[in-house]
Amino acid sequence: MARLLRRRAPFSPTNRLQTLFLSLSILLSLRLASGAPILLGAEREEIGGGELFLDILRDDAVSRIHQLGKVSDADNYLERTFFSPASLKAAILIQNWMEDAGLRTWVDYMGNIHGRVEAVNATAEALLIGSHMDTVIDAGMYDGSLGIICAISALKVLKVYGMLGKLSRPVEVIAFSDEEGVRFQTTFLGSAAMAGILPAAALNITDKSGIKVQDALFANSFDSTEENFAKVKYDSESVYGYVEVHIEQGPVLESLAYPLGVVKGIAGQTRLKVIVEGSQGHAGTVPMFMRRDPMVAASELIVLLESLCRHPQNFLNYNKQYDGVPAESFAGLVCTVGEISCWPSASNVIPGQVYFTVDIRAMDDITREVILSQFSKRVKEKCESRMVNCTIEHKHNANAAHSDKDLSLRLRKAVRSAMSRTPWGLEEDVPMLMSGAGHDAMAMSHLTRVGMLFVRCRGGVSHSPDEHVMADDIWAAGLALLRFLEMNVLC
Amino acid sequence: MARLLRRRAPFSPTNRLQTLFLSLSILLSLRLASGAPILLGAEREEIGGGELFLDILRDDAVSRIHQLGKVSDADNYLERTFFSPASLKAAILIQNWMEDAGLRTWVDYMGNIHGRVEAVNATAEALLIGSHMDTVIDAGMYDGSLGIICAISALKVLKVYGMLGKLSRPVEVIAFSDEEGVRFQTTFLGSAAMAGILPAAALNITDKSGIKVQDALFANSFDSTEENFAKVKYDSESVYGYVEVHIEQGPVLESLAYPLGVVKGIAGQTRLKVIVEGSQGHAGTVPMFMRRDPMVAASELIVLLESLCRHPQNFLNYNKQYDGVPAESFAGLVCTVGEISCWPSASNVIPGQVYFTVDIRAMDDITREVILSQFSKRVKEKCESRMVNCTIEHKHNANAAHSDKDLSLRLRKAVRSAMSRTPWGLEEDVPMLMSGAGHDAMAMSHLTRVGMLFVRCRGGVSHSPDEHVMADDIWAAGLALLRFLEMNVLC
Repeated sequence: MARLLRRRAPFSPTNRLQTLFLSLSILLSLRLASGAPILLGAEREEIGGGELFLDILRDDAVSRIHQLGKVSDADNYLERTFFSPASLKAAILIQNWMEDAGLRTWVDYMGNIHGRVEAVNATAEALLIGSHMDTVIDAGMYDGSLGIICAISALKVLKVYGMLGKLSRPVEVIAFSDEEGVRFQTTFLGSAAMAGILPAAALNITDKSGIKVQDALFANSFDSTEENFAKVKYDSESVYGYVEVHIEQGPVLESLAYPLGVVKGIAGQTRLKVIVEGSQGHAGTVPMFMRRDPMVAASELIVLLESLCRHPQNFLNYNKQYDGVPAESFAGLVCTVGEISCWPSASNVIPGQVYFTVDIRAMDDITREVILSQFSKRVKEKCESRMVNCTIEHKHNANAAHSDKDLSLRLRKAVRSAMSRTPWGLEEDVPMLMSGAGHDAMAMSHLTRVGMLFVRCRGGVSHSPDEHVMADDIWAAGLALLRFLEMNVLC
Repeated sequence: MARLLRRRAPFSPTNRLQTLFLSLSILLSLRLASGAPILLGAEREEIGGGELFLDILRDDAVSRIHQLGKVSDADNYLERTFFSPASLKAAILIQNWMEDAGLRTWVDYMGNIHGRVEAVNATAEALLIGSHMDTVIDAGMYDGSLGIICAISALKVLKVYGMLGKLSRPVEVIAFSDEEGVRFQTTFLGSAAMAGILPAAALNITDKSGIKVQDALFANSFDSTEENFAKVKYDSESVYGYVEVHIEQGPVLESLAYPLGVVKGIAGQTRLKVIVEGSQGHAGTVPMFMRRDPMVAASELIVLLESLCRHPQNFLNYNKQYDGVPAESFAGLVCTVGEISCWPSASNVIPGQVYFTVDIRAMDDITREVILSQFSKRVKEKCESRMVNCTIEHKHNANAAHSDKDLSLRLRKAVRSAMSRTPWGLEEDVPMLMSGAGHDAMAMSHLTRVGMLFVRCRGGVSHSPDEHVMADDIWAAGLALLRFLEMNVLC
């Protein structure tokens, strides 16, 4: 990144007007010269100066990300879950920004916010661009928000330069209401409903307070009956494809010193809840050998899960492959216990129950199935030997999703073209990555073909207040998306 | 118990008046014959019938235990912690029952309820009898309440039979405000303040919501300044001794088929809070080998603690003794993790922190110290090898308390005398037990000599809604306490 910064011309707020004037005059001269779609499409030399929509794509975008990052249900950290008070405030902000970019907006029966601009050709399939507005607990401010704001900013540039009326197909930005699944322990409530893969029964899923998804919607004046819920689904024939910009949440782009990458595919994931039931009793009076302690049993299972995912070969049968899985398929396998609690939860009581979550992800679906089956088998054995009852509830299951080759190629061309036209002129090949994190694109892949852009983040850290994306990388993402629109949906 | 029930004469509510008349006439005839303290002191043959204050010591006591067991802060289970709304309701009930037994009542600056009757000799040292009114979460209804209610019932019998004005020393019943330590993670707030071993700094301990002990007192109109807090302490010269009746919370009396036992001593205990700090991150993007996961580290520590307490010999150096501890001293050693939580607690986030409690108890203090030192050492090693930061906070420490030999002998004589006079005439030696559970008697042993009676409970189960004491065993406890009063404090 040091190199990227070195090669960029200095910029200060005082020369903003000058920039706008310069951009406008270049724009006008180019249109007069060629009559073709321009903006980033022009040769680098012709644009010059390096001030490519810096105000909208970088400064405004950064400022909006910070503004949204302050909209939280907690005082000291960022938390914004499905239909929480903060999420309603965030929705208003996003809707306003969409309208400011010239988009017609509405909110559907699952709380997804839509901002759309129609095309010259009224019947053309629409390009969807989206990401999510919810966060984890103690979140960073870029995860989700970055993708929504970059998309709005790119369209704002088109509006400012009078190009919004010259689209060959409709473009629709979507801010999904739930991707992290914190409140209802199930992910993609928003995008899965839109893709038509969320059953209506999901309206009855309850949060920790026993409030149903439907109750949360009703309470906020959303008449989300089963009938209306069905209307959230889009018709795949009306859609051209889905594109998402998201922070990488991993260390690859940083190690390659490149701000953007194109995502080849997203790891499949399984989320479980494990319930261990033993015999509740007094911490001082039940001899160690008479205990049926679910806390120690759960701890053994957590240690086991880690061993299984770190060294799967030690647990599987080898016959050229490991239980049918080639050794290299274990490369991206990760397993996590992110939540644990017990009942009755007092320091002087042997718990009666312990609950914990399990998150298993792999790039290859067979690998994940083999690990899941091994874990289930070993849980059964451990629990029997400790005389505790164990139940495994399947909370979420999503196969790996592969990006559309054509859309990925178009994204790659757009990134390369945009980066080569920037003042710092990156000429390297655009990195192609796999994603360990799930994204709305996984759900949307059931509706249409999908493509994703990753944005470099500091240290690969996310789901943490330490999550950080450099302002210039946000700019790079906006430029790439703008170039993608210009190459693919401008008349 | 089957035997006890077989030997007791049948009883129904319709013959209560008949019983009272019988008791009164026996009482009168005995007083006329001897002029000596009577009630249970008379020969079994003279009392006859087996209806020994059955209405007060059994039926009223059982009914009060059930009534108090319904006073809860939760809807579906019993929970009553220090100065919770339910504990205030419970306090009013107990104070009313004390007054009904002829006791003068007041509440001290730590919320302990006192009910006292003075003696013929105004300067005699007082006999204190007490137990606690708080509960764990999802508690049984006998733990604590049984001891308070039995004491009130025994004094009620003295009142009903006109003996309350003939005491050789004051008798004071105390319902302690906090023994379980659920709310403030520290035990004996009530009895330790009375014994003078609770520092005034304890007023600043905070609960999970950040509310201080002192705030909780102030909020309920208790002017518990440091100056007033000092007044809670009793002068040891004004006290004769402390006696407590409590459910056994273990299986020994049930296995011996005897309703009561005298407690030789109470195990020492140490309570810790272990904080494990790692590196928070996204569950899908941080490779297994790059993680510093506090959840797996904490799980390993919990498994380690169990191994250490089940098989301490495997961890210690042997040279005739294990690190200075003879093998037999490990007999009563128990270790428990009763609480666990993590931050930020989301299924798709590798936690940044995990917290858990540790409870270690042993009959012998050196044993407990050796185990604690071994655990601390191994925590350090494990945490270093996993590159997580571990902190051990000492929350509570109490050495084993030994009952006073003279007081225990008097209790034993009272139990034997009472049981031999009952219709079912138990003639066996009274069991002598150790207690794995902590009791207010531990704190009170710093003020005065202590003695305890245990009451048989079903399956040794406590700290659970399955906790149960048979009505006849409650009666036996009341009879034994009445006999103890008669033999020791009646003129």
